[in-house]
Amino acid sequence: MTYHPLTESTAAAFLGTVPAIADRLGGDPGQWRVREVGDGNLNLVFLVTGPKGGVAAKQALPYVRLVGESWPLPLSRAYYERLALAEEARFAPARVPALIHHDDVMALTVMELLTPHRTLRGALIDGARYPLLAAQMAEFVADTLYFTSDLAVPPEVKKARIAAYLGNTAMCRITEDLVFDEPWFDAPMNFHTPGLEGVVAQLRADVPLRLAVQAMKARFLAAPEALLHGDLHTGSIMVTADDTRIIDPEFAFYGPMGFDPGMFLANLWMAHFAGGAGLLDVAAQFWTGFVDRFAAHWRAAGEGGALLALARNDAALRDAAIAAWRKAVWRDALGFAGAEIIRRILGLAHVADFESIAETAVRAAHETRALHFARTLLLERDRIGLADIGALARL
Amino acid sequence: MTYHPLTESTAAAFLGTVPAIADRLGGDPGQWRVREVGDGNLNLVFLVTGPKGGVAAKQALPYVRLVGESWPLPLSRAYYERLALAEEARFAPARVPALIHHDDVMALTVMELLTPHRTLRGALIDGARYPLLAAQMAEFVADTLYFTSDLAVPPEVKKARIAAYLGNTAMCRITEDLVFDEPWFDAPMNFHTPGLEGVVAQLRADVPLRLAVQAMKARFLAAPEALLHGDLHTGSIMVTADDTRIIDPEFAFYGPMGFDPGMFLANLWMAHFAGGAGLLDVAAQFWTGFVDRFAAHWRAAGEGGALLALARNDAALRDAAIAAWRKAVWRDALGFAGAEIIRRILGLAHVADFESIAETAVRAAHETRALHFARTLLLERDRIGLADIGALARL
Repeated sequence: MTYHPLTESTAAAFLGTVPAIADRLGGDPGQWRVREVGDGNLNLVFLVTGPKGGVAAKQALPYVRLVGESWPLPLSRAYYERLALAEEARFAPARVPALIHHDDVMALTVMELLTPHRTLRGALIDGARYPLLAAQMAEFVADTLYFTSDLAVPPEVKKARIAAYLGNTAMCRITEDLVFDEPWFDAPMNFHTPGLEGVVAQLRADVPLRLAVQAMKARFLAAPEALLHGDLHTGSIMVTADDTRIIDPEFAFYGPMGFDPGMFLANLWMAHFAGGAGLLDVAAQFWTGFVDRFAAHWRAAGEGGALLALARNDAALRDAAIAAWRKAVWRDALGFAGAEIIRRILGLAHVADFESIAETAVRAAHETRALHFARTLLLERDRIGLADIGALARL
Repeated sequence: MTYHPLTESTAAAFLGTVPAIADRLGGDPGQWRVREVGDGNLNLVFLVTGPKGGVAAKQALPYVRLVGESWPLPLSRAYYERLALAEEARFAPARVPALIHHDDVMALTVMELLTPHRTLRGALIDGARYPLLAAQMAEFVADTLYFTSDLAVPPEVKKARIAAYLGNTAMCRITEDLVFDEPWFDAPMNFHTPGLEGVVAQLRADVPLRLAVQAMKARFLAAPEALLHGDLHTGSIMVTADDTRIIDPEFAFYGPMGFDPGMFLANLWMAHFAGGAGLLDVAAQFWTGFVDRFAAHWRAAGEGGALLALARNDAALRDAAIAAWRKAVWRDALGFAGAEIIRRILGLAHVADFESIAETAVRAAHETRALHFARTLLLERDRIGLADIGALARL
């Protein structure tokens, strides 16, 4: 068999040949309901339901769906996605969908059907709020980062894990280009809301700001501290009132720990600037939950991690190391968040939070406030504390 | 054929079967002169000469020579050594020995015979000085670091290069253990000069100092910025009045750029504390030469490197980035230098500069000054400038 994209007409017959899927759905594949619902930028997503249950089948396309066949993208990203899904499931099994089947030739990953979950981004735009979201996101981020880091993994094992993702270069390159580079020049596919021309010119002329973005890119390129999801925006999160799941880790690689929490914070802050209520509190709760949980893992650890050799049996040193880590990861998270906010307003891939604001002048005003906030995050990331965010975001 | 260690009796016959070696030496292998001269900690080294010329044949042993068969070490280090030697030769061909032959099964690397070169460490102890040393070391360090970094190499290529060395874990582990961890507790093979007990206890109780060492270890573990030699002490450098060559890159891996220059500075500074004259100037000339040459490569670069996307056609941004890089690499170099000096006095592997001082009290006094200097480097690495080193090192 060779790779071919499935369709709503062919998916049931294809998936029905896999016993684990047939068992889960029950009945005859001819009766299964199939809907293609991929609303992301890259892939096909089929929701398939039968008499007993359902699955979500995600298939990579050999090009970027958002742009078309003119932008090829390797199918190997499906391989890295299920590799990451399996690694995340070791450390945060309750926060990711169960993996049911994968097919590397078809670039296909079949997972449990998350229902009645919806995408967090759309839910936030609709005004829905989730009291458990902050804590469950803190759990996912703290657990996947800590338990894949040098604090928990011996260097020989860690280096093999780093190597396992080093081939996922095409996905990293998307981030390198779209997040760090293209917003800063007239890349062909950039667009922005009319009325932002002045602030765009101002940002692009700001040497210290661009230097800060370049520093964040250098960290992204060469700081394999832990396994990153790599694309932790609110479109990669599925929620119900009591459950949060993180999907779509196809951008996974070993990178700087501040990247995942920084992306999540940036997307909550953008939802705030787009007019959402209560989201600064969600962001603050997430951050506190994340760093506290990470620190608790560190305090509970025995020997084994590479960095712990120095700190074992020395609580003062360990606590000093935790304090230094908090400062460093916050600094990085602010830098990455700033880069993310700017690229979502000036680059190719925008967010529905702003795009769904019909009135151009209103959207431009909200985006302008977000851009100034992002600039401050990048320039002042050494000095801003969590307590400063509220004032900065309300200016 | 399986691996077997060569001896002075068997080496000539074995090497004589390789045409490139036979041609270089001329005559009959039975007449070749063979001397085993390995004075390092890990390997056999045969100097083999014939009527026409000579070679140096380095063979890895399956254990650490310094300690014995109780400490096994994989032969694969010979593979990484010749991989690194070839990569260094691409960018700094005049500063490394030419590779003539390698045999991965025998863990054997055959190189041009460097003559009349001698090891820099021994030469410095004897009071010899080399006017070209600083500039030629600056050339090696700047060229190998710059041209293997994200500034010069596209991310897809860089990640493949990082991956190529990620299996060299056993050698990295030696550094992780001996440089960063073991000096800080009573590791079984540690030793130090009698009379240092007080300062040792003081250093080990210094939480900010140990935190600084731990931060440097974190950088060593997870900052693949460029190809490192990985063991750039004065015993890895061969000199004549007009030529400097860097040998023994078996610790090579992609790591933080400050590591190689930091190791070299540390070993020059130890030679100074052991009583050598003029070595602070050599260190300062090396540093200035290194950063100036690296910056010149950066300024001369066209497009291509990952970080340059932002900086192309923008001299102000590029110069700001160069200034930030100078500060960051200096900071790291001081941190690594501090860790190196401390471990060479308190750990397993000492340096002849101090060990050759017969009088215990004199040695202890010199080492104590070096330890205080190293502590300052680690604690004040954000604040110390090159101009401060003279005053600190003369205290």
